[in-house]
Amino acid sequence: MAGSNQVLRQVLNLLTKGSGFDQMRLISGGDGKCQCELTVEEEHTNRGGTLHGGMTATLVDSVSTVALMTTGPGLPGVSVDMNVTFMKSAKIGDDVIIDASTLKVGKTLAFLNVDLKLKKDGSLIAQGRHTKYLGNS
Amino acid sequence: MAGSNQVLRQVLNLLTKGSGFDQMRLISGGDGKCQCELTVEEEHTNRGGTLHGGMTATLVDSVSTVALMTTGPGLPGVSVDMNVTFMKSAKIGDDVIIDASTLKVGKTLAFLNVDLKLKKDGSLIAQGRHTKYLGNS
Amino acid sequence: MAGSNQVLRQVLNLLTKGSGFDQMRLISGGDGKCQCELTVEEEHTNRGGTLHGGMTATLVDSVSTVALMTTGPGLPGVSVDMNVTFMKSAKIGDDVIIDASTLKVGKTLAFLNVDLKLKKDGSLIAQGRHTKYLGNS
Amino acid sequence: MAGSNQVLRQVLNLLTKGSGFDQMRLISGGDGKCQCELTVEEEHTNRGGTLHGGMTATLVDSVSTVALMTTGPGLPGVSVDMNVTFMKSAKIGDDVIIDASTLKVGKTLAFLNVDLKLKKDGSLIAQGRHTKYLGNS
Repeated sequence: MAGSNQVLRQVLNLLTKGSGFDQMRLISGGDGKCQCELTVEEEHTNRGGTLHGGMTATLVDSVSTVALMTTGPGLPGVSVDMNVTFMKSAKIGDDVIIDASTLKVGKTLAFLNVDLKLKKDGSLIAQGRHTKYLGNS
Repeated sequence: MAGSNQVLRQVLNLLTKGSGFDQMRLISGGDGKCQCELTVEEEHTNRGGTLHGGMTATLVDSVSTVALMTTGPGLPGVSVDMNVTFMKSAKIGDDVIIDASTLKVGKTLAFLNVDLKLKKDGSLIAQGRHTKYLGNS
Repeated sequence: MAGSNQVLRQVLNLLTKGSGFDQMRLISGGDGKCQCELTVEEEHTNRGGTLHGGMTATLVDSVSTVALMTTGPGLPGVSVDMNVTFMKSAKIGDDVIIDASTLKVGKTLAFLNVDLKLKKDGSLIAQGRHTKYLGNS
Repeated sequence: MAGSNQVLRQVLNLLTKGSGFDQMRLISGGDGKCQCELTVEEEHTNRGGTLHGGMTATLVDSVSTVALMTTGPGLPGVSVDMNVTFMKSAKIGDDVIIDASTLKVGKTLAFLNVDLKLKKDGSLIAQGRHTKYLGNS
């Protein structure tokens, strides 16, 4: 499992390079799931001092892709549809749990769900869904 | 108009600080619309060398927010829902046009649409929709 | 609880009148949740003999609205955003479980999630999210 | 063109059978587009007397599918993702224009957009996006 997590961490690093999430910590991963943690830094926020919507979407994209990659070999696929509903703001210093799970992996499409929660009380910050195409587009 | 564009450019800079889009160029803005241009750099891409899904979502978020801010004074609002459909990949070196327009501004909610297109042939890369709440959340 | 379920059933009837779901059975409801069951009839299907996408969306809309109404007094609100991801088809004769839960109720917005599953094996047919505005639009 | 419209009308009838939209009128169709008109009847409305959200989603689903079918031979495909943003209510007696256009048809996926507008003033009621899978699921 330690070895497996090391691979996941490398995957996560590759996927998030240049997106300002080098500080994302992998909590667990496997069986179609991936859970990460991030402390909101100033660079992740908009001018209101809260986690930027695009940053939230980037977390949905990246962590769900790692969750998908735990389901088997092959490419990570390409995004087809992604949606995010924002329920609560996360402020600088807040620890955010990003919890991705695979809803279904079919022959050509995969479906993933992501919950973002505040670590301190488990309240939902955002929920996203991500559809990926697994073939050669 | 030049003066107005200068304000928009400052708004855009504020909104995109830390998101890796400092190189975004404002083409035009006003009357609920905002059009920007970005050359895809390596830092915007995933390991496949194409524009990262989270980056696309960040462009949808930021440029639609600037479009909204041209409709009148007040806060930029907070995101409620955002979705993106990905139709084509954008590669390093591609010039991308981000075209945001305000669908409706109500008393408490605003609705925006964003088209991302390749500059060279006008083909759609992605389309996103963004709902913002204008009150005090 | 029997009395409470009777109220929910009346609410459900009101919400679904004319939408072809008079046969929807209420399993349970309360505390922001509502679970219903429907046997797919020919009138719910498209020409391929599977549950119509618009019908699936109608189930997401209606059952999440009943779930919301269990959280307290007041209007059912008006829809702001709704999305559905379709993962598997449901055929005529299939028993479908529609499971709605309230993610958050704020002062002016409410957020709901709905899972549609096949009763026989629990596999996901679709997942939807629904944002409602609670004020006077 | 009259002959072509007759085919489209038959397609529309097939797609909308049982969904309460037998009264939908085809305005035009072809080249990936389809425009229909519907007068809101009591059976399309929720208890507030306005067009039901699920009904709006059914219109998005059906009219975009007809628009897709004008692009060439083959199956209508199956729905993968659908979203609707609701901007304004439509009341009993209102004439609604449903305007669907194909954004892209690829080898295995097709992308469609639908605008619903009030006929009297052209104001947007709702906007939806629909992703369909064209292969054998």
